[in-house]
Amino acid sequence: MSKELPITERTRLRRKSERGYYDRETIDAILDAMPMCHVGYVIDGSPVVMPTFQWREGDHVYWHASNAGRGLRAAEGTSVCLTVSLLDGLVLARTGLNHSANFRSVMIFGQPRKITEPERKADLLNGMIDAFYPGRSTILRPMAESDLKQTALLSLPIEEASAKIRSGGPIDEDEDYALPIWAGTVPVKMQMMPPVPDPRNLDGVEMPEHVTSIKFG
Amino acid sequence: MSKELPITERTRLRRKSERGYYDRETIDAILDAMPMCHVGYVIDGSPVVMPTFQWREGDHVYWHASNAGRGLRAAEGTSVCLTVSLLDGLVLARTGLNHSANFRSVMIFGQPRKITEPERKADLLNGMIDAFYPGRSTILRPMAESDLKQTALLSLPIEEASAKIRSGGPIDEDEDYALPIWAGTVPVKMQMMPPVPDPRNLDGVEMPEHVTSIKFG
Repeated sequence: MSKELPITERTRLRRKSERGYYDRETIDAILDAMPMCHVGYVIDGSPVVMPTFQWREGDHVYWHASNAGRGLRAAEGTSVCLTVSLLDGLVLARTGLNHSANFRSVMIFGQPRKITEPERKADLLNGMIDAFYPGRSTILRPMAESDLKQTALLSLPIEEASAKIRSGGPIDEDEDYALPIWAGTVPVKMQMMPPVPDPRNLDGVEMPEHVTSIKFG
Repeated sequence: MSKELPITERTRLRRKSERGYYDRETIDAILDAMPMCHVGYVIDGSPVVMPTFQWREGDHVYWHASNAGRGLRAAEGTSVCLTVSLLDGLVLARTGLNHSANFRSVMIFGQPRKITEPERKADLLNGMIDAFYPGRSTILRPMAESDLKQTALLSLPIEEASAKIRSGGPIDEDEDYALPIWAGTVPVKMQMMPPVPDPRNLDGVEMPEHVTSIKFG
């Protein structure tokens, strides 16, 4: 059985609660399917939503930020909301307000922790590279200490989190099914296109398998 | 010339400022390319980032919410941040921390206004349908007053906003170009797949052109 997270005031789905999931298996699958996330901070009292990449290792999600950025300053010692969303389809119904979207999303609430120990930081950042491109960290020029110093690495435990999923076709009012209106769904997919090699790649350097096999979504 | 927005404390790009744009042409093109957005609210002091759909009409973006939802309550009378992001590619460099992503994003700050006048509300919601599926609102069963009552419609002026764009290949340190490491980009595209008709569509109802011609991204 996948571990169920406790439902809190912040994670409880108030509307369409049948779309809510609180088990780690569902939550982790969504986090692993989509690196892009949106992190919400409160800066000087107003919300700021910044797009960035996240990756999961065990019971935490991680993201990095510039040590000079304002997101980082806002994140230290306060709560954030990290949201991952995948658009899976457009849902066309027989009346305007029954139109919808198929999606998978996760919201994680909590107080991020800054990883400061240099070796742990390098390990985690290599873990990010390998999460996206399996094995790639081993063929790269190792990260320099100065680069590591400029980069802040934040972690958030997957403790206060929920998933929300909508799938399937349109749901219309009974009487509307008699109308001669086309309804249905248009599935949406994030597609990886053919890789574009850097013109400055050395002659004879082959494209590794971790590039051709990338799959998100 | 496209209108330039004033740069504020909230919209000024502090890092990599060459990636920042403050003109309406650039901002509008990103808003129009991607309906999915993430709205950040402050609820009971903590940030909450909710995925939803936005659409633009002139100088405002709009989104709708349940009149019973907590996002709406949070939005009334306070500031929000609405962020739209498109992932355009993965950028693989020769060392870990030079890896990046190509993207287009917009952040809009401001205080949302609730549209309450029923006719204006219906017009705007039909405008949403037509923004996504040109002409579709005219073939639908008109929205019922009761449905309209359950739906709140919010607007935000595009006044305090900025765009951020990264494109192109990896940027590595001079000495790293001598390394036999494959670098390059993997373009990412949001792809519409073949539409799936609702099994309950009436016989003889053809798929309209506004379904086959959908293009986001």
